[in-house]
Order: sequence, then C-alpha cells, then structure tokens
Amino acid sequence: MAVYTQIDKTNLDDLLAHYAIGELVAFEPITAGITNSNYFVDTTLGRWVLTLFEQMDAKALPFFMTVMDHLAAHGVPGAHPVARNDGAFLSQVQGRPAAFVHHLAGHSVLQPNATQCQSLGDVVAAMHAAAASLEAKQANIRGLDWIDEAAAALDGRLDAATQALLHDEIECQKHWAEQTHWQKLPQAVIHADIFRDNVLFDGNRVSGVIDFYYACHDYLLFDLAIICNDWCFDADMQFHTQRWQAFISSYSRRRALTAGEHDAWPAMLRAAALRFWTSRLYDYYFPVGDDVEQHDPRPYEQLLRLHRQTTLPVLP
Amino acid sequence: MAVYTQIDKTNLDDLLAHYAIGELVAFEPITAGITNSNYFVDTTLGRWVLTLFEQMDAKALPFFMTVMDHLAAHGVPGAHPVARNDGAFLSQVQGRPAAFVHHLAGHSVLQPNATQCQSLGDVVAAMHAAAASLEAKQANIRGLDWIDEAAAALDGRLDAATQALLHDEIECQKHWAEQTHWQKLPQAVIHADIFRDNVLFDGNRVSGVIDFYYACHDYLLFDLAIICNDWCFDADMQFHTQRWQAFISSYSRRRALTAGEHDAWPAMLRAAALRFWTSRLYDYYFPVGDDVEQHDPRPYEQLLRLHRQTTLPVLP
Repeated sequence: MAVYTQIDKTNLDDLLAHYAIGELVAFEPITAGITNSNYFVDTTLGRWVLTLFEQMDAKALPFFMTVMDHLAAHGVPGAHPVARNDGAFLSQVQGRPAAFVHHLAGHSVLQPNATQCQSLGDVVAAMHAAAASLEAKQANIRGLDWIDEAAAALDGRLDAATQALLHDEIECQKHWAEQTHWQKLPQAVIHADIFRDNVLFDGNRVSGVIDFYYACHDYLLFDLAIICNDWCFDADMQFHTQRWQAFISSYSRRRALTAGEHDAWPAMLRAAALRFWTSRLYDYYFPVGDDVEQHDPRPYEQLLRLHRQTTLPVLP
Repeated sequence: MAVYTQIDKTNLDDLLAHYAIGELVAFEPITAGITNSNYFVDTTLGRWVLTLFEQMDAKALPFFMTVMDHLAAHGVPGAHPVARNDGAFLSQVQGRPAAFVHHLAGHSVLQPNATQCQSLGDVVAAMHAAAASLEAKQANIRGLDWIDEAAAALDGRLDAATQALLHDEIECQKHWAEQTHWQKLPQAVIHADIFRDNVLFDGNRVSGVIDFYYACHDYLLFDLAIICNDWCFDADMQFHTQRWQAFISSYSRRRALTAGEHDAWPAMLRAAALRFWTSRLYDYYFPVGDDVEQHDPRPYEQLLRLHRQTTLPVLP
C-alpha cells in the first residue's frame, strides 16, 4: 500500500495547464495502489484519477491508453483516459509518465452475488466485442516466455515437488500452445487481469473495469479462465457454482463459445492459474520494494493442482 | 414536441447487434425533441440516448460526431457518442441516420444561479481549449450567407420597419466580417447553440452540454455572445449582471480575452441576436411540421434593438 511519488499543487497546476479539465480544487493520494502512485484530483470540472507509472515499461504505456480510449469510445464502462490539449494521453510528472482518467463511481466487491456476476458477463462480452475492432496489438508481458524465465530464476528456491509441478505445467502449456486448434482459438485484446479488485460496482451493476496495464492480444478464453479462478473459487478452493453460471450464461448469450474453446477450457483454467501462481512466486522471492503488499502464491498452486485433477467448472 | 419516427424492439435488437453496449432491456420516446426523434434506451450495460436525425443534412453528421467524440476524449462533460463495432458513429434506423450517445444525468435550469453560471464558464473554457486541437472544420450553417438568404425569403412578410432593421443589421455584420481585426479574432470549433436547454446540471455543476448539431468553426466570442443573450437576459430584457459576471469571470480566468475581442464584443452580441432572430422568423413563416414547437422571434428582435443602442454588458 503505497504512494511512491509525492506531488504538490505546483505539479498539478503545471500539469492541468495541458488539459481542458478545469482548475485544481483539491487532491489526495490513493493509498490502495500496488504498482503505481495514484491521486484523486478534484478540479472545477469534476473528479479525476491521476496515475504516475512507477515501474512499468514506458514503451508499453501508449498501447494501454489506446485500449482504454477505444473501449470507452465503444461504450464499455471502464477507465476512460483524458486526452491532453495536444492530443496525447501521457504527460510527465516528476520524471514519471502520468495519465488522467475519469473518476468512476462504485466499489469493488469481494463476495459478488449472482446478479453482479451476470452484469460482469455482459460487460466482459461487450469488452471483447469492442476489442475486435482494435488494430493495436501488444503481446502478453506475462506470457509463456516470461513464465519460463521466471521459473528458471526460481529454480533452487522452491522445494523439489513444487519446482517439478511448475516445470511440468509449463511444458504442458507449451505443448498446447503449439497445437493448431489452440492457434485457432478466438483472440483479441483482452484485459488479462479482471480480478475482483479491478471491477467497480454501483449496486448490482458494473460501473467500470479498471487497471488495464496487463492488457494484451491473447485468447478471449484466457480472460474467462482468469475470472473463473478469481471470482468463483474461495481461498479454501470452494467453487461458487452460482457465480460462475450467472457470469458465463450472460457472457455466452452475447458470444457463443466455439467447439475449440470447449476443448481448450480445462487447459486454459490451468494456464490462468499458472500465470498468477508464477508471478506471485516471483514477486515473493524477488520483491521490488520493502513496503509493497504481496499476494500469497499458495492458493494459485492449490488451484493449479485442482484443475490438473478435475475438469470442473464446465462451460455451458 | 414530437417523436417523428416510431421504432420497435426489432429495430433496436438489430441496431444493438452492431454495438458493444449490451442487450435491450427497455426503451421510451423522449417527447421534448424539436428537430430529431430521441429515445431513452436501457440495455444490460446502462442507459443511452438514441437520436434519429430527421431533417438534418446527412453529410454534416460525421463532423458533429467527430466534435462530440473529440470533446469527450478531452474530458469535456458533454454528449459522448458511442462507436459501433465497425468504428463508425452513425447507423441507419428506418432509413434515418441514427446515433447512440451516453445518457447524462442532470437537468437543464431555466433560472440559473451564479454558481451554475460559474460552472458553465469553466466548461465552455474547457470546451474551447479542447476544440483548439480539433482538425475537422465545418462552416456555420446559420452563418451570414444563410441569414442573407433567409432575409430575402422573408421580404414582403415583415412590416417595413422590421425588414429595414433586418437588412441594416446584415449590412453592418457583413462590413465587420470583412475587417482585418475581425478576421484575427480567435476561432475554433464552437458549439454555437449553448442555450439553457442544452446544458444539464447536477446540482450547481454542469453535468453535460448536449445538442452539438450547430457546431461549426467560428469565433469563440460568438459562443460567449450567444450565452450572454440567452442566459443573462430575461424575456422582458432585464439583464442579470450576477449571472454574467459569474460566467465571464470563470471563463476568462482560463482564457484571457484579446484586445480585438474587447473591441468586437458589442457587435458580436448583435451578431448572436441577429442569428437567432432570423432563424426564428424563418421558422415562424416557413414552418416545417404542424406539430413542432416554435420559438417566439420577438424577444430576439428586442435584444438586437437593445444591443444597437447600448454597449452593455461589458467584458472584464
């Protein structure tokens, strides 16, 4: 929980001169950030969120801005970046790349009900439909290549059984990724990080999806597997059938899943579990800062083991 | 007060298939429209306004969509059009061009208070700042050429004194428009119709400016004159000093007015009065439909006479 870069009124006055969003009224740090520094900024025109990108590859940022702008233009409720007077989305504040997005009302929900999951299904289907017309592409920075490198770096830090599981799963995923029928799975720009804390609800309706900083061109089914793993499994691996049914039935009403996606589903649940297990292991053994909240890797190890043993949950 | 084109559920289901804004839940006509047919459309993702363009030049519509999209991308609170899956903003419904915009909360205010006028000043200044980076241009369809043609069509229908006033004012405006110092007045794409019924407030803050269908490349000062005439003069020509001071002081804090604009101001108030007087006269004598609400031309004649006699209100 951190704001890495402190800013002052002069920073904001200088910054706001490049935008058409009014004059500074007040600002306050948002302490919930993990990767970046975030501030609420109130101007004469409304409330905005200012993000200072602390650790991200600056070359990747314009793509994320394009994705967010494209989805907003298509009516998808999500973080809507604000263009500067010169047309760019990115500024510099104290040497960091920075961007304003519209403030979104609403709160994330840790125990979503079925109606909320149904609303999420509508929004994710809309997001995937809108993404189909997006020409910009960027590979998954947490794709198999990165997972492979991370696993190599972790060798010797994990016990033998854990290390064997990690490497075996990577080999399985590499094998599947090379199959023709996987390569034919529907792809587009996906969010790739739709965890519960990245979705805001106003009552039972999604008011916005935020944090597009892992967006990438990848399998649509990968987004669904990430959602299934995070939204529908408890830390004790209890599966919430109702949540999943509500989500997937509303999603698939807008986009019928292909036969290939049905076939790939059990493996994709494993791919999504592997991705977050690996990054959590990596962040645990190679922490970036002293003060940064870390996610426990173990539930994702358990989830991976579970998915390797069963073929539940199923697609409709 | 009219909805000219009736639509049904099948029209909307077919239309929504081209967008990523969810499935139809409900819809209802908005009877307050004058020029176009408008509907509230509720989908699984939220509320939208669907406009069917009834009388407008279809060639002009893409420009209006570009303006609305550009301003929304820059954070200006206003009608935000929704892109189709194919990237276009315009569809066809029952042979009419049609577009979805985000529904905006809020209501127009007939007796605005000073705080509301101050908020409007912030928003109009933001709009003018954001418009500076807009490359698309389109001439004012109610510019002097149109006014000249309308006045010719009205000859013989007005009494001699009124006809003389109209022609004399047109000659004055033509004279000014040819002067070098007028041609140097700051220009950009302006709204050109910021009447009280085209601005929505959420409490004392502007929640959105709507109805960009007279937007054009013209003098920034023309927008200010339109606002001064509509927002600050009663039907009995009483001037609301507080409203004007609140508006213009917040606007000019963001954009200092030039010496040329100070010089041109009394004539610009007359230009704005002439524009709406003429179009109201034209609509009165050449009505388009039976059922359409008409604005009384006389207050704008009175306002023009007033501006020809005095040089109030002043710029700061």
